[in-house]
Amino acid sequence: MNKLTEKEIKREYKYHGKIINVRIDTVELENGAVSTREVVEHKGAVAVLPVDRDGNCYLVEQFRKPIEKILLEIPAGKLDAGETPFECAVRELREETGFIAEEIVELGYIYTTAGFSNEKIHLYLATNLTPGRADPDEDEFLNLRQIKWKELREMAEKGKINDSKTNAAILMALSKVKKYLSDK
Amino acid sequence: MNKLTEKEIKREYKYHGKIINVRIDTVELENGAVSTREVVEHKGAVAVLPVDRDGNCYLVEQFRKPIEKILLEIPAGKLDAGETPFECAVRELREETGFIAEEIVELGYIYTTAGFSNEKIHLYLATNLTPGRADPDEDEFLNLRQIKWKELREMAEKGKINDSKTNAAILMALSKVKKYLSDK
Repeated sequence: MNKLTEKEIKREYKYHGKIINVRIDTVELENGAVSTREVVEHKGAVAVLPVDRDGNCYLVEQFRKPIEKILLEIPAGKLDAGETPFECAVRELREETGFIAEEIVELGYIYTTAGFSNEKIHLYLATNLTPGRADPDEDEFLNLRQIKWKELREMAEKGKINDSKTNAAILMALSKVKKYLSDK
Repeated sequence: MNKLTEKEIKREYKYHGKIINVRIDTVELENGAVSTREVVEHKGAVAVLPVDRDGNCYLVEQFRKPIEKILLEIPAGKLDAGETPFECAVRELREETGFIAEEIVELGYIYTTAGFSNEKIHLYLATNLTPGRADPDEDEFLNLRQIKWKELREMAEKGKINDSKTNAAILMALSKVKKYLSDK
């Protein structure tokens, strides 16, 4: 078995930005060789799969400049300073969909792309939803989409959902959603 | 409904690296306001879920410097220049696990983190495996882990798999793996 560790020799920042910082770490590998790792620092985020008692899920369509496409995703957002992931889940759900959830269940977390970034997304299932008024960020434009849980699962299993956090949340919710539906 | 588009006004590169480039796009939003988007360019990658006829899956443990942790992942790697995703899947599977697969099935693709990067990962299921000699990159140290498909599914559904591409591949493989097992 490999020991699987990398000893950091040097850390050099290349970019300080609004959402990300970029640095190059020089590391000593377990065989003594020296290599570099590019690291995109991100403060972390939260994503929430909202499912009402009738089995309707609420996702958002959003133009994503990096991929030059509209992507279908569960509501999500970056952690504010001093905010817990749970508080962020409550806030982002309300801002992006207007919903207030009676119950928010922790599903787990993912590293979106650990090869070059430390971004960690905490995933939640939100149920028993009460509608309200959405309030997105001023530079954020969204379309809300209502999709049945059964249909969403099928889309995802067929590879038709292309957002990584949305796939992870669906997978982690598979055994949990049924409990919250009025028609079990 | 929102039109959901952003018109690019300016593109400014901040960093050119080994695996990533970083730029800032200045965009005009649909309400006429101007904002900026940080974009991490990545050439794309491939990830492969290998399952043999006895239901054994083969994953790798790898130290990931950005998160300072060992992460359990399906075999994966970046696309080489001129390489198709399918060719990359065959190559990465052999390099990281030694296996040659008689059948490689396309599962779909994900954007790992479309909010700040264009990284796209093509996902595959590899079956009918013949063992061989692994040949990882010179700066890559891995431990191969054998996990039963049933156990892997359960781990993932419980939120115990923390790598985004691995979760997506498991979800997209759910309805497909059974067909390739000798004990159906």
